[in-house]
Amino acid sequence: MPATRLAGIFTPNLVPLDARGRIHEAELRRYTDWLIDRGVHGLYPNGSTGEFLRFNAEERREIIAIMADQTRGRVPILAGAAEANTRETIAACEYYHSLGVRAVAIVSPFYYKLSPPAVYAYFKEIADHSPVDITLYNIPMFASPIDVPTVRRLAEECPRVVAIKDSSGDLPHMIRMIQAVRPRRPEFSFLTGWDAALMPMLLIGCDGGTNATSGIVPELTRKLYDLTVARRIDDALALQYKLITLFDTMIYSCDFPEGFRAALRLRGFETGVGRQPLAAEQHIDLEGISRTLQCLLAEEGFADQPVNGCPPRERSDAALSARGFESQSVQPANVERIVESVVAELARRGLT
Amino acid sequence: MPATRLAGIFTPNLVPLDARGRIHEAELRRYTDWLIDRGVHGLYPNGSTGEFLRFNAEERREIIAIMADQTRGRVPILAGAAEANTRETIAACEYYHSLGVRAVAIVSPFYYKLSPPAVYAYFKEIADHSPVDITLYNIPMFASPIDVPTVRRLAEECPRVVAIKDSSGDLPHMIRMIQAVRPRRPEFSFLTGWDAALMPMLLIGCDGGTNATSGIVPELTRKLYDLTVARRIDDALALQYKLITLFDTMIYSCDFPEGFRAALRLRGFETGVGRQPLAAEQHIDLEGISRTLQCLLAEEGFADQPVNGCPPRERSDAALSARGFESQSVQPANVERIVESVVAELARRGLT
Amino acid sequence: MPATRLAGIFTPNLVPLDARGRIHEAELRRYTDWLIDRGVHGLYPNGSTGEFLRFNAEERREIIAIMADQTRGRVPILAGAAEANTRETIAACEYYHSLGVRAVAIVSPFYYKLSPPAVYAYFKEIADHSPVDITLYNIPMFASPIDVPTVRRLAEECPRVVAIKDSSGDLPHMIRMIQAVRPRRPEFSFLTGWDAALMPMLLIGCDGGTNATSGIVPELTRKLYDLTVARRIDDALALQYKLITLFDTMIYSCDFPEGFRAALRLRGFETGVGRQPLAAEQHIDLEGISRTLQCLLAEEGFADQPVNGCPPRERSDAALSARGFESQSVQPANVERIVESVVAELARRGLT
Amino acid sequence: MPATRLAGIFTPNLVPLDARGRIHEAELRRYTDWLIDRGVHGLYPNGSTGEFLRFNAEERREIIAIMADQTRGRVPILAGAAEANTRETIAACEYYHSLGVRAVAIVSPFYYKLSPPAVYAYFKEIADHSPVDITLYNIPMFASPIDVPTVRRLAEECPRVVAIKDSSGDLPHMIRMIQAVRPRRPEFSFLTGWDAALMPMLLIGCDGGTNATSGIVPELTRKLYDLTVARRIDDALALQYKLITLFDTMIYSCDFPEGFRAALRLRGFETGVGRQPLAAEQHIDLEGISRTLQCLLAEEGFADQPVNGCPPRERSDAALSARGFESQSVQPANVERIVESVVAELARRGLT
Repeated sequence: MPATRLAGIFTPNLVPLDARGRIHEAELRRYTDWLIDRGVHGLYPNGSTGEFLRFNAEERREIIAIMADQTRGRVPILAGAAEANTRETIAACEYYHSLGVRAVAIVSPFYYKLSPPAVYAYFKEIADHSPVDITLYNIPMFASPIDVPTVRRLAEECPRVVAIKDSSGDLPHMIRMIQAVRPRRPEFSFLTGWDAALMPMLLIGCDGGTNATSGIVPELTRKLYDLTVARRIDDALALQYKLITLFDTMIYSCDFPEGFRAALRLRGFETGVGRQPLAAEQHIDLEGISRTLQCLLAEEGFADQPVNGCPPRERSDAALSARGFESQSVQPANVERIVESVVAELARRGLT
Repeated sequence: MPATRLAGIFTPNLVPLDARGRIHEAELRRYTDWLIDRGVHGLYPNGSTGEFLRFNAEERREIIAIMADQTRGRVPILAGAAEANTRETIAACEYYHSLGVRAVAIVSPFYYKLSPPAVYAYFKEIADHSPVDITLYNIPMFASPIDVPTVRRLAEECPRVVAIKDSSGDLPHMIRMIQAVRPRRPEFSFLTGWDAALMPMLLIGCDGGTNATSGIVPELTRKLYDLTVARRIDDALALQYKLITLFDTMIYSCDFPEGFRAALRLRGFETGVGRQPLAAEQHIDLEGISRTLQCLLAEEGFADQPVNGCPPRERSDAALSARGFESQSVQPANVERIVESVVAELARRGLT
Repeated sequence: MPATRLAGIFTPNLVPLDARGRIHEAELRRYTDWLIDRGVHGLYPNGSTGEFLRFNAEERREIIAIMADQTRGRVPILAGAAEANTRETIAACEYYHSLGVRAVAIVSPFYYKLSPPAVYAYFKEIADHSPVDITLYNIPMFASPIDVPTVRRLAEECPRVVAIKDSSGDLPHMIRMIQAVRPRRPEFSFLTGWDAALMPMLLIGCDGGTNATSGIVPELTRKLYDLTVARRIDDALALQYKLITLFDTMIYSCDFPEGFRAALRLRGFETGVGRQPLAAEQHIDLEGISRTLQCLLAEEGFADQPVNGCPPRERSDAALSARGFESQSVQPANVERIVESVVAELARRGLT
Repeated sequence: MPATRLAGIFTPNLVPLDARGRIHEAELRRYTDWLIDRGVHGLYPNGSTGEFLRFNAEERREIIAIMADQTRGRVPILAGAAEANTRETIAACEYYHSLGVRAVAIVSPFYYKLSPPAVYAYFKEIADHSPVDITLYNIPMFASPIDVPTVRRLAEECPRVVAIKDSSGDLPHMIRMIQAVRPRRPEFSFLTGWDAALMPMLLIGCDGGTNATSGIVPELTRKLYDLTVARRIDDALALQYKLITLFDTMIYSCDFPEGFRAALRLRGFETGVGRQPLAAEQHIDLEGISRTLQCLLAEEGFADQPVNGCPPRERSDAALSARGFESQSVQPANVERIVESVVAELARRGLT
């Protein structure tokens, strides 16, 4: 029996820390439940948002162990498994396999900028020895790029390699990868890690996303996925526009992932203080983010407005009204569909 | 009465040269007709594909004059008008206005990498003195980038600035621009210059494209536009996948725009030899492109197969079959629509 | 009889404009004399500092004609000759040859990013038809890079190509070029266009520089050249440190070359307003530059202090005193040399 | 009593591995002695060449412990101490301090691209708690850049920060750093990590280098340092030219540091197989490197020629012979020439 195909929204979760800077197990378990309850399709611990690099090898295992135990199979886990070298990465794969994760995700070698053959050799060696399925993780702004021929070569030679997570946000690149791999490996999954392009990425053939916003507003990211897969283009687009605003606010303020940590606190979690120290001038920025975020969350119904209110925002619908083809959605059939989906959605959230 | 909104596919046409390297007027006129007949919405002479930089100021005017005369208002013309400095650019705007072009397109200052305020000041001075509508042209790989705040500032302050052509291919960037400008300037147009992302760009709100492929396979680019605007997502996607293959073959082989020039010869035009000399080793590459192109064109019904045949190609449909949401397209209504469109298309091509 | 080897400091001069934005011939002639009188070895009109791109083809010829007439052979002229295409560039070479220039300088093709074979083919075609010696101009931040194998290939195949001006500031790259070319073309010249590395570039084998600072403080740039060639390392280094401060102030403030234009006004020339318009916020920056520049110039004895004085500056000598190997310079013979040069310098400035 | 100032050549050593891929202690000890015997001024384990990232935390400590024990104070050790986060890095600093290392070197945070304030905060926190002197390590091609204001800020606020190792190879950047820091911290050291610019870097004020070539040809790198510090410019330059050829051969072939590993084997050390797996096509490259390296080493007298001989090499002296000033500084005739030229120059300037 084949394993389930990787699809949908996998949350690259932050790790709550306690007052001493250690993993806050109770809060991590509560966060895990909270994410699953709000509809994410899977969890992706030890990703870039999860600051895998700022934990040591033991802590990385502890994070997966806690989350696997808490999840108990309700959703699949994609476990970040990169360690110092292939031998230790393979050992991590074995351990995560014993915990029952669906697959591991392994970032391309970083720091050194490796050539395509070296990137290939790295993944090939791991794939030849891993007992668990592997997702390649391409994030060229941080690590050695995995180019299209390398993805194809690995997909053809390594049955264990079942997916790629691509965080470049480069849409034509995604098309080229799908075109190169899907004819021979139709079950191979393509996940996008760039929230700002989630909806169009899904439309051009992606199977899902590993999106940091889903760790903060899982309802919103999941809804965007559902609307897009249902081909409710106009609704999806309106939500994508809002999500990009939220994403930009979190990703371009202060240093990544501080904006996301601040936002997670607004959602009611004790995140603790990050391990990357902040300069005095950065703390001021964080206050600004918090206010902006709280207003955006309030607008979407996910948080209360701040006490001193939010600035009136120009309706982003206006941004869309000039497109030439939106009339579809105002036809009677569409109105009904919208009403139905809203009712269903409210029901799902226990609001009716 | 307001001018027509810029929308649809504008072709950035190459300029046929004669045996002495001069503008081949007769062939340019024939090419103009050919493009209009095959359904492009507008023409965009003196763009990057048109090698505006390799002509002198007089030749640039001659090109627009010939094409405006030949077009005689059948389709709007977007005239590339950048000259050595703002004074000469404004003079060119005046001349093109006298020829009746719909608008001019002005590339951001190049060679020097200008700061956002300098880019703003450049366009502001031109916009304040131009008698004709202006399209900003952002192509960050070649010229000083026009960032989102600068686009918004120009859109707010300059009624003459009515559109932006963006060739970055960066989809989130396009969303950010639309979000920043459309609420206040709902008639402002957004055109994408990156063929590899045309379909998703249209889906997220673009009004059209200035796409080099439309100068080679206008039928194909126009069809992709029509399918996308009609929200025939699956059909559009299949065509986008094919277009990206064609686009890559032309753009990544030899130096731009030689791949496009070779392809245009295959469509039956005397292009002449380009003004940028080619090294001996580059000529070899061109032969390879020609073969590949002819096969691709043949596959789409736009050219005969080469004498020695084409390699069997894996069906790109397979690339799409694994997506999770394609079931829509096999519903009866869709089948009918497809049949209808195929019949109509065959009729349009005179094949029925 | 072979032509003189290109060596020393060639000034890439700005072009003074009159109130109507036209070339200010009288001031350009006065500037030409002023530069020659202050010791630059040659002139380099129509370079990047000279904003060749913001003039039209006729104006570029006019600039060279005026300067050649004014120079009357006192120093060699290196004439920027790049035009819209090879045919027009060759015609410009012929014209500049008729004016008696020592050589032309041709920037690598810009806007489009050309491959090495295309860059080769471009220069090869020009070199095969030019009646005058050619200097390749490599400025990878603005134009297609000319890589080491291409420089070697052109040096080997084209006797007309006699030099390269490299503005990358990349010292190992310069070593690699010299190593690749000099064994077979010992008379080939290597000029650096990056003022911030002039002294070390001369020390590792360059023959001279085309440095924008020499258009503002020709005395200073010439002196740095002389000190370096005379192997007065410590004195040269102290001056290089000061020059880098001046260079940074001019190049990193506002948009290039506005900092240089402002500085040239301080030296007493009517520069006119540049052709690239400035935004309101840029004008404010210019005032800051002017003050800084005037103070630096005053410190070096080339201008009066501004009325409201200059901030006390930490002695840059301190920056040098900690190096581990300067003991050589305190030997008696060196002390004498230093004293002599200081006395001579003071005398030259009329301060004794 | 103040600690010794960091100066001279510090070798970033590779770590020999045994047949099982573990640290080969005996060979590491032999290598340590070999380096010290050949004159390097210090050792720099756990640098980029030492592949610190491909060892785990325990191994990194083991490497330093072995080398400190073997060195027994003969030369100072600069210990690479970066760990997963500031807490663990500080613990590593404490451990290395207990081993008696002269200082630690800490690379700027990598993977994530941090802003200047975040880079500052990172080093500030470590510097406030480290018991041992710290060298900042700037390698912008691999890690978050440490900009000049941040270097100055850390130098001013943190007495524990005593040096910077800069591997950018950017000479003007080095001048700017020295200028910013030396006036207030005259004992602060500047080390260059870019072998291709070692000689000019020393000439413009650097105190030494951490150069990978010194791990392969310590005699050569040390000699280049000595010649440069003694201001034997011509001899130093000739050697710098040869070193750049050797450096390029090792650094641009295969993936770093495989070229260096291959070369170290040629010097008689069992290096073992690197931890980054190599693809089949990369092994072929390594054979080529080996041959080239052995020939270069033989030419310099550091290895036997390969059995099948070496290709005749054009004398690199030829590359230097065309410069105008290289023999000047030594022979009597040159002194006369200098005097003559100085007199002539003074005359030209009207000073005699």
